[in-house]
Amino acid sequence: MGYPDTFEGFVVDSPKAWNQFHKSELKPKPFEDNDIDVEIKCCGVCGSDVHTVTGGWGDFEERQNIKKGDRVGFGAQVWACLNCDICKEVNENYHPHLVDTYNAKYGDGSVARGGWADYIRAHEYFTFKIPDAQESHVAAPLLCAGITTYSPPVRAGVGPGKRVGIIGIGGLGHLAVQWGAGLGAETYALTHSPGKTEDAKKCGAKDVIVTTEKGFAKKWAYKFDMLLKCSDAMHKMDIPEYMSMLKVGGEFHMVGIPDHPLPEMAAMAFTANAPKLSGSHLGNNQGMNAMLKLAAEKGIKPMVETLDLSEAGCKKAV
Amino acid sequence: MGYPDTFEGFVVDSPKAWNQFHKSELKPKPFEDNDIDVEIKCCGVCGSDVHTVTGGWGDFEERQNIKKGDRVGFGAQVWACLNCDICKEVNENYHPHLVDTYNAKYGDGSVARGGWADYIRAHEYFTFKIPDAQESHVAAPLLCAGITTYSPPVRAGVGPGKRVGIIGIGGLGHLAVQWGAGLGAETYALTHSPGKTEDAKKCGAKDVIVTTEKGFAKKWAYKFDMLLKCSDAMHKMDIPEYMSMLKVGGEFHMVGIPDHPLPEMAAMAFTANAPKLSGSHLGNNQGMNAMLKLAAEKGIKPMVETLDLSEAGCKKAV
Repeated sequence: MGYPDTFEGFVVDSPKAWNQFHKSELKPKPFEDNDIDVEIKCCGVCGSDVHTVTGGWGDFEERQNIKKGDRVGFGAQVWACLNCDICKEVNENYHPHLVDTYNAKYGDGSVARGGWADYIRAHEYFTFKIPDAQESHVAAPLLCAGITTYSPPVRAGVGPGKRVGIIGIGGLGHLAVQWGAGLGAETYALTHSPGKTEDAKKCGAKDVIVTTEKGFAKKWAYKFDMLLKCSDAMHKMDIPEYMSMLKVGGEFHMVGIPDHPLPEMAAMAFTANAPKLSGSHLGNNQGMNAMLKLAAEKGIKPMVETLDLSEAGCKKAV
Repeated sequence: MGYPDTFEGFVVDSPKAWNQFHKSELKPKPFEDNDIDVEIKCCGVCGSDVHTVTGGWGDFEERQNIKKGDRVGFGAQVWACLNCDICKEVNENYHPHLVDTYNAKYGDGSVARGGWADYIRAHEYFTFKIPDAQESHVAAPLLCAGITTYSPPVRAGVGPGKRVGIIGIGGLGHLAVQWGAGLGAETYALTHSPGKTEDAKKCGAKDVIVTTEKGFAKKWAYKFDMLLKCSDAMHKMDIPEYMSMLKVGGEFHMVGIPDHPLPEMAAMAFTANAPKLSGSHLGNNQGMNAMLKLAAEKGIKPMVETLDLSEAGCKKAV
């Protein structure tokens, strides 16, 4: 196939050396029937990467009609059994033994080494064809930050006639605002930085709610179908105050996962409007393809800064 | 109408004297167009009453086609505006200024004084005709503990083909088991008391899961559509362990509201299977009538101990 037996990528050796990247030989998983080898042109970077390399999240230890030569992408997951009840309900992103794209082990002990490398090998089901309209460096973050923020509102039924609030307008949040608007919902950005107003509106926000204003939640009580929490600074956050902005049975959904535990909450915070506190992990195959399609159709793009895939570039990125 | 201008009921004066009931003259709210005066034959008692009189929840301060002479009941709510968006979406039990049946004030300052009295006056919409098949002392707890445990599984779509777990087999829980089974779901009782097995099975539980067994949740991972938490001893509870028993997107729903805050939880507990942590407050008018109908049809009854409506009876009850 013209692909090498070993790949090369940038790695760090421990949480203590979390930004000391060096090039290393990577042994891919054994090639199996459904695997695809892909040459890597670009790869995103995420807050999750920092949580992972710094040890904050714990210390580390179907060809999809794709033809040779196609431009494809991977998200943050490269394997699930695709055979159990969970996978059959197209919840493969919740498979109990799923394999993440890096810092993760396959059942046979092979290690998934990620995208800061020259090649990657993975199962076809987790390989996504990139629409021609999307440049590679635009598509890369969609495959992780994109699906992370696209899947929850879609699963919650966000669309025309619904009102959604995006909390935290950063890497995840600026995409979430675009999904909310792109899905046809009335979308608000919630931020403690009034300076982000212009960017949020460019992303499609109807308006911005500044959360440093005392009592900001009061005038929005019972108004939102969904709040999507996109920053990871949760432990300082008054979650019940935000939940009070939800319609009866509305969802407060967390996608930025902090190292710290959630703040203490009164159970009573769940009685006034029956809010649902929830979280998620990535999205499924169908969601990935639908998201890439919506992004191509609506011109939804992450704001991207490109860096060389080099030791210095990796360090700067994290 | 033959009803007195003032009523008489049993009251306590402060959280310190939480079980020192004495008879007191009660001034009902002014009689308005939709109000109904009802002579009280019996009234339930609930863990909530103890939370309320002891101050644990904070210090205190449509004729429905009903004809004169009908046997009717009230739940724990006697007023909502019935005119706002929330009420129009039949979520009147979440109206921001709803009036509870006791220890609560109407907008005009009138006080709702509850059911440990000779009469009660309240809006017809919150007055429910009791099916002939139900004895009054059986119906009374259904109107509060019943609707509290009936509404959440119904709203969550529990029924045939679903698996529901009831945590805590006490006053709320033994009703919840009967609703789960009565709605056609595969229903399990989760308890730390193996001694409750027989009672739980009589209520319709398929089996009992003893939660003092180390690792009890492991073999039930990803197996439940809903877990309904019916005890109020939450602050000692490993909520993430229970949530791990839920199918992807399943609901952990709390109806026993403790005085203490919820225990600290990692946000990561919401990623493995996207559980929803939720709560609720009573149920709506339609739920009340549907519940009374289901109870009458299936013979669903609370286990009841009756006491005199007297100073001594009130004290013993709480």
